[in-house]
Order: sequence, then C-alpha cells, then structure tokens
Amino acid sequence: MIVLGLDPSLSSTGWGVIRAEGNRLTHLANGQIKTKASLPLATRLAELAAALDAVVSEHRPASAAAEEVFVNQNPASTLKLAQARGVALMCAGRAGLEVGEYAPSLVKKAVVGTGGASKDQVHAMVALLLPGAKIAGEDASDALAVAITHAHHLASARRGVR
Amino acid sequence: MIVLGLDPSLSSTGWGVIRAEGNRLTHLANGQIKTKASLPLATRLAELAAALDAVVSEHRPASAAAEEVFVNQNPASTLKLAQARGVALMCAGRAGLEVGEYAPSLVKKAVVGTGGASKDQVHAMVALLLPGAKIAGEDASDALAVAITHAHHLASARRGVR
Repeated sequence: MIVLGLDPSLSSTGWGVIRAEGNRLTHLANGQIKTKASLPLATRLAELAAALDAVVSEHRPASAAAEEVFVNQNPASTLKLAQARGVALMCAGRAGLEVGEYAPSLVKKAVVGTGGASKDQVHAMVALLLPGAKIAGEDASDALAVAITHAHHLASARRGVR
Repeated sequence: MIVLGLDPSLSSTGWGVIRAEGNRLTHLANGQIKTKASLPLATRLAELAAALDAVVSEHRPASAAAEEVFVNQNPASTLKLAQARGVALMCAGRAGLEVGEYAPSLVKKAVVGTGGASKDQVHAMVALLLPGAKIAGEDASDALAVAITHAHHLASARRGVR
C-alpha cells in the first residue's frame, strides 16, 4: 500500500510517499511545496493545491495522513496553517483518499519513541527507517514521519491490535 | 463587474454573485453549500471545492471577497472554519481572482451602517439593496453583504476616495 504523509503549512508544505508491505517500509518520494509570502493568500493556496494534485496523480497513494492542528500561542499563524491544511486535505479527499489524523506528539512517539522528540531526532529516525531516502528538509521529514505512523497504524488495525 | 462574495464554513458556505456598475448593484445568484457532518473532513472539503468551482465557472466573477477569520472562544470550530476558508480562497485563486478580505464588523458597517448589526439586519438590508433577490439563507445573505462591501470598496478605490 502506498501512503502519503502531509505536513501542511502555507510557507512550506512537506509531503512524503512510502510503500508499506506488512512491517516493511520503502521510501518512494518526498518534497516541500513552498509558496511566496509576497503573493496573495488565494494564489498561494491555489499553488499549493496544484502542486499537491501533481504529487497525488504521480504517486497514486491508497491512503493519506496529516498531523492534527491546534490553536497555539500565535492565532494568525494557526489560521494560515489551518487554511493550508484545508487545501491539503481537500486534495486528498478529491482523490478519494481518507486522511488519518495524528497528534504531533503521537507521531513523534510512533517514530522516535517519545512524544517530546525534537525535529532533528524525527529526521534522524526517519532517515534510519527509510534507508536511501534523500530528505528535502524538516517539513518533508515530518511528512514522512506521519506516513510511517499511519502505515504502522494501518498494519496494527489489520492485525486487530489497535 | 461581477463580484463573488463568500462566507465560508464547513457545514454551510454562503456565496453570492452580484453585478456592480458604478453604484448600481444587481443580484445575479446566491446559495449555500452544505456538507454532511457524518462525512470525513477531506471529503467535505472536496465537496465544497467542487461546488464552488461550479459557481465560479458558471458566473465567471472578475473579483471575489470573503470575511476575515479570527480565532474565537471555540478553537475547534475556528479551525474547521479556517480549513473551509482555505478551500474557498483556493477556488478563487485558481480562477485567477484576487480575494478582498473584510472584517465582519466592517461588512456590517458597510451594509447596515453599524458594525454591531444582527444577522437579521444584514439580511433585511441586503434584500433592500438587491431587490428581487431570493436569498437562500443567513450564510448566503452574509456572502452577498461581503460582495456588496467589496463592490463599494472597488468603486471608491476607482474614484480615489479609499
């Protein structure tokens, strides 16, 4: 099964595609979709959608996952993030994909073993779990971490040990 | 000029299309796009995008506007709203439209004359300003109010009295 992980944000949306066969994970592709802060919001969101549509149509995932979003100390940045996330989920939904949603701490716990892991730790563990992957950056590594978490979750669900 | 007003939300996105010629406003169409709470978020967002794409391609607006969004007392509903808004703006952006953004209080002030106007007052004034319009509901009337505000703003900008 091909799994798409998403780490949406307006300035840089990370994405990662892996193949999951039982417990075996293989890296397929990853990247970061950046939009310019100088462009109007609607244009940035349209660019994000077009780029994600291209990822979905190239890799044809069977399932997708994204981190949950929470309102944090900076409401303005939370709203930007949520708007980008809406577009990312819409792209998945339009392709007929259901989107698993995981709290960031759960993703870190699933990949690194502790919910308080740093971005560097996530990156290092993703690189270890997906040998040979050239990871585009922190957002791409976060997206791959979400994909890995989702793959584990789906495998556990199939084994009936949720 | 044809102006599209948007009042996005996940459960019911209002939209309204008017023609603005100088100070003369004519109603063209309005409606509400509802998505079922029982469906997955990604599916609801995809349905919203498809419905808005149809509105845009039928009415071919030259400009669009939406209310600004703020984090309110209910973070979960704010995040749902922001995700729907991201999709709505994306649809406008994809059609090459810039989207004017107005605070809700500014829309009420522009249409009713006071920033603290009720939904009923907005509805009544929109019906008065757009005679003959059959308004689909509160969300559609809010969307028409945003379109009216944007049309006034564009007309003022052209006259150099911003």
